[in-house]
Amino acid sequence: MGIRVAVAGASGYAGGELLRLVAGHPELDLVAATAHTQAGTPVAAVHPQLAGLELTLGVTEAATLGDADLVFLALPHGQSAALAAQLPGGVKVVDLGADFRLRDAAAWERYYGGAHAGTWTYGLPELPGQRAAIAASGRVANTGCYAAAITLALAPLIAAGVADPADVVVVAASGTSGAGRSAKAHLLGSEVMGDLSPYKVGAHQHVPEIKQATGADSLSMTPVLAPMPRGILATVTARPIGRTPPRDVLAAAYADEPFVHVLPEGAWPHTAATLGSNSCHLQATLDADSGRIVVLSALDNLGKGAAAQAVQCANLMLGLPETAGLSVFGVAP
Amino acid sequence: MGIRVAVAGASGYAGGELLRLVAGHPELDLVAATAHTQAGTPVAAVHPQLAGLELTLGVTEAATLGDADLVFLALPHGQSAALAAQLPGGVKVVDLGADFRLRDAAAWERYYGGAHAGTWTYGLPELPGQRAAIAASGRVANTGCYAAAITLALAPLIAAGVADPADVVVVAASGTSGAGRSAKAHLLGSEVMGDLSPYKVGAHQHVPEIKQATGADSLSMTPVLAPMPRGILATVTARPIGRTPPRDVLAAAYADEPFVHVLPEGAWPHTAATLGSNSCHLQATLDADSGRIVVLSALDNLGKGAAAQAVQCANLMLGLPETAGLSVFGVAP
Amino acid sequence: MGIRVAVAGASGYAGGELLRLVAGHPELDLVAATAHTQAGTPVAAVHPQLAGLELTLGVTEAATLGDADLVFLALPHGQSAALAAQLPGGVKVVDLGADFRLRDAAAWERYYGGAHAGTWTYGLPELPGQRAAIAASGRVANTGCYAAAITLALAPLIAAGVADPADVVVVAASGTSGAGRSAKAHLLGSEVMGDLSPYKVGAHQHVPEIKQATGADSLSMTPVLAPMPRGILATVTARPIGRTPPRDVLAAAYADEPFVHVLPEGAWPHTAATLGSNSCHLQATLDADSGRIVVLSALDNLGKGAAAQAVQCANLMLGLPETAGLSVFGVAP
Amino acid sequence: MGIRVAVAGASGYAGGELLRLVAGHPELDLVAATAHTQAGTPVAAVHPQLAGLELTLGVTEAATLGDADLVFLALPHGQSAALAAQLPGGVKVVDLGADFRLRDAAAWERYYGGAHAGTWTYGLPELPGQRAAIAASGRVANTGCYAAAITLALAPLIAAGVADPADVVVVAASGTSGAGRSAKAHLLGSEVMGDLSPYKVGAHQHVPEIKQATGADSLSMTPVLAPMPRGILATVTARPIGRTPPRDVLAAAYADEPFVHVLPEGAWPHTAATLGSNSCHLQATLDADSGRIVVLSALDNLGKGAAAQAVQCANLMLGLPETAGLSVFGVAP
Repeated sequence: MGIRVAVAGASGYAGGELLRLVAGHPELDLVAATAHTQAGTPVAAVHPQLAGLELTLGVTEAATLGDADLVFLALPHGQSAALAAQLPGGVKVVDLGADFRLRDAAAWERYYGGAHAGTWTYGLPELPGQRAAIAASGRVANTGCYAAAITLALAPLIAAGVADPADVVVVAASGTSGAGRSAKAHLLGSEVMGDLSPYKVGAHQHVPEIKQATGADSLSMTPVLAPMPRGILATVTARPIGRTPPRDVLAAAYADEPFVHVLPEGAWPHTAATLGSNSCHLQATLDADSGRIVVLSALDNLGKGAAAQAVQCANLMLGLPETAGLSVFGVAP
Repeated sequence: MGIRVAVAGASGYAGGELLRLVAGHPELDLVAATAHTQAGTPVAAVHPQLAGLELTLGVTEAATLGDADLVFLALPHGQSAALAAQLPGGVKVVDLGADFRLRDAAAWERYYGGAHAGTWTYGLPELPGQRAAIAASGRVANTGCYAAAITLALAPLIAAGVADPADVVVVAASGTSGAGRSAKAHLLGSEVMGDLSPYKVGAHQHVPEIKQATGADSLSMTPVLAPMPRGILATVTARPIGRTPPRDVLAAAYADEPFVHVLPEGAWPHTAATLGSNSCHLQATLDADSGRIVVLSALDNLGKGAAAQAVQCANLMLGLPETAGLSVFGVAP
Repeated sequence: MGIRVAVAGASGYAGGELLRLVAGHPELDLVAATAHTQAGTPVAAVHPQLAGLELTLGVTEAATLGDADLVFLALPHGQSAALAAQLPGGVKVVDLGADFRLRDAAAWERYYGGAHAGTWTYGLPELPGQRAAIAASGRVANTGCYAAAITLALAPLIAAGVADPADVVVVAASGTSGAGRSAKAHLLGSEVMGDLSPYKVGAHQHVPEIKQATGADSLSMTPVLAPMPRGILATVTARPIGRTPPRDVLAAAYADEPFVHVLPEGAWPHTAATLGSNSCHLQATLDADSGRIVVLSALDNLGKGAAAQAVQCANLMLGLPETAGLSVFGVAP
Repeated sequence: MGIRVAVAGASGYAGGELLRLVAGHPELDLVAATAHTQAGTPVAAVHPQLAGLELTLGVTEAATLGDADLVFLALPHGQSAALAAQLPGGVKVVDLGADFRLRDAAAWERYYGGAHAGTWTYGLPELPGQRAAIAASGRVANTGCYAAAITLALAPLIAAGVADPADVVVVAASGTSGAGRSAKAHLLGSEVMGDLSPYKVGAHQHVPEIKQATGADSLSMTPVLAPMPRGILATVTARPIGRTPPRDVLAAAYADEPFVHVLPEGAWPHTAATLGSNSCHLQATLDADSGRIVVLSALDNLGKGAAAQAVQCANLMLGLPETAGLSVFGVAP
């Protein structure tokens, strides 16, 4: 008998990836998966890639979920707080939504609207001190997908005093699963294939989270939708302070990390190499003309950017080996 | 200490998938990986998705490989025989090439050219009697990717006397990894994206293998290159004999199989649901206008069509649980 | 002053392609474009590729359209009859829907439901006698996209007595624009990229149209959704009668056609080569193992399969050069 | 009889697009197309999308080309100078390579190597004064594809004193046709589909051209390969000077331009809308957090980024209407 785990919001893309990871995890038992409009439907009818998984989606409510040792919440932003409040205090929770990520209530209200629900332990184990904090927490707020890619690229450089926090410029492209599974005309395959499409230019809601996690003071972030189901590639640039090569700082910061790989010099991260894994690939250099630091960061938005990262946090919270049930390696080509 | 495994031809796509599966297998130790022109290169430089795997490609020769308990050969067609002959007799071998699949030497010579190397146990465990034969064999010839998809769809129907072997018509589309990793202009991304392209129309070299494995007497097979890295979708049609619903025959044949899923009625296989897995999804019906049996079969050409299937065979040969190190579930979306 | 043309149903994919072609046509003036829910919206907001076209979508009703010399109807199946009945008799009409394609009212009712609206001149100029019939007609029913690809491949072979009409087997894959622009979850980019997905297996509504147009007596047709925005590749197989090479029959049938190209021997049609054009590419051979005739046919489902074909018909109806405003050449890569 | 035009380097992607545009141009006659290794091959065998174009590739030499009124050179960088020197002085030339774009010989030698061939009129008609200069020139150096996208986005802002030239940061993603048609393993469809891959990070050879054309003093440019055949999306950011809205400056600069469209507020450029056209779509805003100007620019790298732009220049040089034979509208979806 393994540890009992439930997934709320299991009909979406992050939910489906959570089901895949939990079902294949050597120490976890998937005891419940819930959804809103698709409650009552077999999981494999909603996620055909899970054919063979005999489980029916339940209703997303505390009664269905509270019997688990740990619950993953993969709900739309703003819906986690009410459900989390109803779960027994002894049930551990990892929230994949944005509700509990920010420390600054005003920033929450400005970008998401509504009242700020509170602040949970931030679920990025590779930040200094955060691994222990997650292990000691009953409630963890998983990072956003863009935030994971950008924070892993930038936080060590600002912390080391090597990158200037004053004028960070980021362009980050995401596969379409980052936009969710709701049927919207602009996300149809006919529209997105062969297309690069920027969105929320000038004011993306993840900016306060990224500033909080990286220490950046000013951040221009332009998100782009790319014609692929999964993957984030973030190009992060900042002005250098001093002459320390940025790659050296990153290599030192992640030398012992199982899931963050600073690539050999000359090799650049690309998204396909991370598909299905919990890995983030990094590389950094100085731009010849402008002198700027340029860091490239690639990960799977549903992996290290969402579901796999959440399982990594859960492993820590449950006292399991941090890498249990997770793959370092991507599925490619 | 696990069982010692080596992969020859590790620089190609099937080779890379073998490395991923072996590296993640709970009972196998990856002791050597070899290649031709890329010998001496770190594995992760050739397969960026394997960043973190500390191994350098060796030279493809018996001295490098013979120390293993089991060797996977992922070499170009026609190159397995010479190498296999040099391996010690106690080393088990799974050959992913075509060299040892055919019983009919004349068919080999006609479609592949050169002398026929011999016939090994055919590596499709789901065929009647084949599971035991594989378990008892030291040398196994893995199925071809198209052959796996088509045989699983058709063999039980012909064996049951429900499908007429006389006039089978197949159209099967494959992702581009099926065409290999050699740099060819017609396989450039610019050419294949947005494109469906038939090839080898009228005379595909896999026809004799498929006829041998399915029992078909006459087979028209048209292969098509599809704009995706992985996946095969085979549409297999045959004239019915009698009135037994073809889905019933398939459902009975695969009721206890972990990797072959006859989908619920109304659900049709599609390739993305099998990505990265060892699963094959099947569905069958009778065409309203023509009365023909129509079976749809989907799998990952590098998974159940090559590397994962090879690991399934290796598990049997080594006395391990058949499903060890393999995923039933696909990585989607 | 050119000939006045209007497009009803201009917000969909076929409608957008009609607008592009009419706006670039040397003899036609685009005087009105209408839509249902998007009436009142600038065309370029609905079709960003038409930035620079100063026109606002009107309401789809006879008052808006009846002032034109010719109206294209690109409406959902079943909606053309009511509107067409309200247009003045002198207004020429090309209907891109299925409403008026079938001669057999029973077949209409079986596959589409509702009452059969009638039968108009079938809009495939390359069929024998059809060019003159279209030129003499005021109302023309444009072919369906699958029907265009399959009929051009098969009709001359059956007419010449070279292909047996008794057991035709077709597998045809289409780009996603063939499924329309409505927001449906299974058509999201995340779902369709990397995926081949069969649909309506065993009973596609285009079968009666294709049988009518080709002369086939029995037709098994399996449609597949392919991960690309445009293009149809049809694999059409039939048993041969006699020994006439099928390519010779096709080459003779289309020797003088500007838009149908029987490729040189050894070259096979592929969809990307037809993108944006009104061309159909064909090739045929005899299968080595089964002896079956195999014809491959490629076209752009929005081009020769819909909008460009409709403009070709309109050119004939209006006494213009048949090729005016149409491209023989595809946009590739 | 039209104006006689020849294309050198016709076997590549830009060459193929030139052939398509010239063959469909109402005033130009395509009299010769030449290539290197594929001389002697029918054009349609090299470019299947041009089936129906009866022309055979000749050898790239002055004797084959010099009989034309205007020659397009679509050769690898560094090969244009020798050929151009051999063409009769009265033959007009548009060079799509980089050889004659730079005024600074040192910059040429640093980024391209070898001796600098000279400087021709820069072929971007929308730059102030450049339209007349092109019309008066016999030799024109077409812009690079990235340079076209970035210059149209940025040059008016720097010229107007609205954007600071001191710290421009650009991330620009291109479809794979920008990488050419040579068979390279990293450009295989299996590698590029589903993948975003940065390249030449920190030192791209187009930087000096872009600085020359835009007036930027410092430019960090990170290029990314995107999983689509065509299209460039450039995200261009700079610090603002004063409070003039950047969109106003762009709207004024391009108010009368047929091919450059500043989109309505709230609409953002995306690449698919420009496919096959000579259009560039632009939008600009101020970033809420950083205050930076953010301009998005989309075009077809083979259209406004190469072949169509070259035809626009040729139209000016030949005294034809600037828009002749070119499409404002993209082929979408």
